[in-house]
Amino acid sequence: MSSGKGLFVSFEGGEGAGKSTQIRRLADALRRRGLDVITTREPGGSAGAEALRHVLLSGAAESYGVRMEALLFAAARNDHVETVIRPALSKGFVVLCDRFMDSSRVYQGVTGNLQPDFIDALERVAVDGIVPDLTLIFDLPASVGLERARGRLQPHLGNAAEPDRFEKEEVETHEKRRQAFLDIAAAQPERCRVVDAQRPVAEIGEYVLGLIEPLLTLKARAVTEQVGAQ
Amino acid sequence: MSSGKGLFVSFEGGEGAGKSTQIRRLADALRRRGLDVITTREPGGSAGAEALRHVLLSGAAESYGVRMEALLFAAARNDHVETVIRPALSKGFVVLCDRFMDSSRVYQGVTGNLQPDFIDALERVAVDGIVPDLTLIFDLPASVGLERARGRLQPHLGNAAEPDRFEKEEVETHEKRRQAFLDIAAAQPERCRVVDAQRPVAEIGEYVLGLIEPLLTLKARAVTEQVGAQ
Repeated sequence: MSSGKGLFVSFEGGEGAGKSTQIRRLADALRRRGLDVITTREPGGSAGAEALRHVLLSGAAESYGVRMEALLFAAARNDHVETVIRPALSKGFVVLCDRFMDSSRVYQGVTGNLQPDFIDALERVAVDGIVPDLTLIFDLPASVGLERARGRLQPHLGNAAEPDRFEKEEVETHEKRRQAFLDIAAAQPERCRVVDAQRPVAEIGEYVLGLIEPLLTLKARAVTEQVGAQ
Repeated sequence: MSSGKGLFVSFEGGEGAGKSTQIRRLADALRRRGLDVITTREPGGSAGAEALRHVLLSGAAESYGVRMEALLFAAARNDHVETVIRPALSKGFVVLCDRFMDSSRVYQGVTGNLQPDFIDALERVAVDGIVPDLTLIFDLPASVGLERARGRLQPHLGNAAEPDRFEKEEVETHEKRRQAFLDIAAAQPERCRVVDAQRPVAEIGEYVLGLIEPLLTLKARAVTEQVGAQ
């Protein structure tokens, strides 16, 4: 584990996959056990990153190239890591983060057609050794995720019977991203677990907690051994 | 030469070394010969880079770490390269740029204690193949450069007889940067030329023009050969 005494868990996946619900549930469950937990999210999560968020979302950003956008996201991530995540981990906190480095890889790498070398270099620079102990990849067919995300935005609208051309393109892009997340999970099985986001909320919660528990035990043992060695 | 049909010349060195004077003179001389010339500068030089310049210079920037600052400079440089420098070079312009990638290497690398690996990766990402055909490193003893820069800011003040402790530290930092620029020149002799910035302005101008001329001939020949081959 690369992140000191704390435990760093990132939540990844497409829109509408239920990440934030599970982050809230997990934070509650861990706090009830007396653990110190912070929840955070990207992009943003720190003062410097928020300032960049404004640059990224301002009108000027439309003319930015994908490389510049990727550099800005990396700068925001580096600030988030250095001012929020690393200090919390070094104090022994559990850090639950909604989106982290895999989102950059998927959104800018796959959809933006950036070279893997470039993404690798930027990732190393941005996280500077702070890699999640566990990454939960919330997996959902694109059509379901889009429907959920749309329902959240427009709860008064029914679902159209047939998707139009634009919706089909949207579904294709989401499927590409979904596949990219699954590829990351397959390439880094020691860090990543795929979560079937179509299962009931409570079931997913149990499954996630079951994945975290052995890591908490490992952490506790490592700390005890360190103290014992002094 | 890595930059298409145009010619890309960067001007580097400490404060008060006379870079901007020589850029003006050289631009005039080349325009009199009928060449298309643009002069530009970093940080900034393009709309996206200017937006970041504000972030870098705002109050929020004080809390930024050196890595984030380096990432922001890289993002600004990438925008400058993609929206200004690369298009100008592809149209055959001579591009004269006041500070470029070597300034990052020296200011953030040396003074900010960033690792060479990190700087290398960021540099490659930011310039994406656009490397100067010629880099002129304006060399000046730190004490002289500081005196000149100070004179420019406070022309009504005389020079104090003895430097105080703060001024001595300032001189030491400038000397470190000077050495770092000279190290770059020594490591990349095919790209870099050191200019003795203590010589008279007109003499430096002649010397600089003499360095540019053979490159212009080479460029012209390469273009002719390309046209001939079509």
